[in-house]
Amino acid sequence: MTEYSIGVDIGGTNLRAAAITREGKMIDKISGTTNLQAGRDRVILDLVSNIRELRDQVGVQGLTGVGIGIPGFIMLDKGMIVGSHNMPGFDNYPVRDDISQRLGSPVLLENDANAAALGECWMGAGKDVDDLVLLTLGTGIGGGIISRGRVLHGFVGMAGELGHITIMPYGNPCGCGNRGCLEKHASATAIESMANLMALGDNVTARQVYELASSGDPRAKKIFESMGRALGLGLATLINIFNFPLFLLSGGVLPAWDFFAPLMLEEVRERSFTYRNTKTRIEKAILGNEAGLYGAAYMPFQAK
Amino acid sequence: MTEYSIGVDIGGTNLRAAAITREGKMIDKISGTTNLQAGRDRVILDLVSNIRELRDQVGVQGLTGVGIGIPGFIMLDKGMIVGSHNMPGFDNYPVRDDISQRLGSPVLLENDANAAALGECWMGAGKDVDDLVLLTLGTGIGGGIISRGRVLHGFVGMAGELGHITIMPYGNPCGCGNRGCLEKHASATAIESMANLMALGDNVTARQVYELASSGDPRAKKIFESMGRALGLGLATLINIFNFPLFLLSGGVLPAWDFFAPLMLEEVRERSFTYRNTKTRIEKAILGNEAGLYGAAYMPFQAK
Repeated sequence: MTEYSIGVDIGGTNLRAAAITREGKMIDKISGTTNLQAGRDRVILDLVSNIRELRDQVGVQGLTGVGIGIPGFIMLDKGMIVGSHNMPGFDNYPVRDDISQRLGSPVLLENDANAAALGECWMGAGKDVDDLVLLTLGTGIGGGIISRGRVLHGFVGMAGELGHITIMPYGNPCGCGNRGCLEKHASATAIESMANLMALGDNVTARQVYELASSGDPRAKKIFESMGRALGLGLATLINIFNFPLFLLSGGVLPAWDFFAPLMLEEVRERSFTYRNTKTRIEKAILGNEAGLYGAAYMPFQAK
Repeated sequence: MTEYSIGVDIGGTNLRAAAITREGKMIDKISGTTNLQAGRDRVILDLVSNIRELRDQVGVQGLTGVGIGIPGFIMLDKGMIVGSHNMPGFDNYPVRDDISQRLGSPVLLENDANAAALGECWMGAGKDVDDLVLLTLGTGIGGGIISRGRVLHGFVGMAGELGHITIMPYGNPCGCGNRGCLEKHASATAIESMANLMALGDNVTARQVYELASSGDPRAKKIFESMGRALGLGLATLINIFNFPLFLLSGGVLPAWDFFAPLMLEEVRERSFTYRNTKTRIEKAILGNEAGLYGAAYMPFQAK
């Protein structure tokens, strides 16, 4: 009997689940669909039936537990989701206990960026360290902090909101109420907004800005330079605060590394004496969109 | 036989040591002098003789160990001090092991702000929590992060350099190589530099700015408002990163709380959704300059 756990990652329309052994070997994986907007009951049914399907494939015995990565804030002690615009109807509903009851297995919830950070630390780019920070560069910027091998949660589970570090006191306004948040200057959305300001065309996507930069467009390159400097500013602050050995970047903006990384690193070198005086590594995460599956699957082992 | 440990705090010219029981009761305390500038041998002799004196007073038996808070970076694994302008001759010298050998007791070193944070968490304003951040507002701004009851060290022991969070990308230059560091906009030194910019007089001290503000001087009040906003900016970032229940302020600037705190809190409220949505407390530390003694004394108990 193989001891394994199931890690689940819920996106806007997709749902993926993987069975992973205690040694970190992915033995099976399924993809399903769910529509977060379809409401709580639908999403929970989809979740439970996908997890059951995977469990029946691998074998009911040997399942240590289920970890679920969710795009939103988790009230850890209550096993509830709060304030997630992505998941209507979930606020203040005991979703963890509901799913656990239906499955007859322990269930743990985690914020998706935290799960990805944990996954990278367990089986990815951070395998050799116990402490790391992960920034996910996508529509927004998510963050996960792993300290002594565990997710740093804070007292209600909201720690790691690294996209909301203020990098410019009077920078772009943010939905969180702040101005100059890192994610308003260094996410894919920020890249698109700069493309608009630079008149690169109507509704240009971050991917198109990347293609323009690749073809040598100087305005597109400038955008990645601004984005890289903004990211470097945030990273320097994080390095001075944590003095961790490893800072990882992941997400959809990663392919543009060569365009944004040089100025990012220049900014970090200038601004962080800790970076200059220690062997701090700033690297690409390596598990891609499977990081969250690994991290979610690791949680039941860690809790045991 | 009472089980106790000795906590030591070294300042520029003073040296204090306290014998504290495992329950956190200070049973004896001495003050000595030392001149950090007098060089390594002198400082070590002063340290050892003061610690011996206290130990002999309380009783050699029962001593668990000695913790020493030091103004500088500590290489934790090696027990060395690095890059401390305050302590010439100490760089790369195995000071921990030297003192330990002379005393015949285990010795632990810690950065002074980290020790103060640990002390507040053990016996001070943070007694009821396991996670807190302390900012010491003095000549510079020091920081200590306590996570799950322990100092967060990072991988060489340089974590918690919270005075070097960038709060303004092109703010005042800092000796660390950065610009716009929190401590260049919110420390006692920053207050004095603003007093100079506001033509409040020659070589006005932070204390005098405080007195002027108390007597109603609008320029002095403005200085504390700027300092409070800068501090709020840094605190909002820290709260979004850590989601800890408690953030403490200590140090020489604390008496001016009523002048800087209102705008500090306004800034935090505006900039941190985590602050607005959780019961995060921002409070004064309560142990004053004894915090470091408590924290240093706690370390041998924690290590045991």
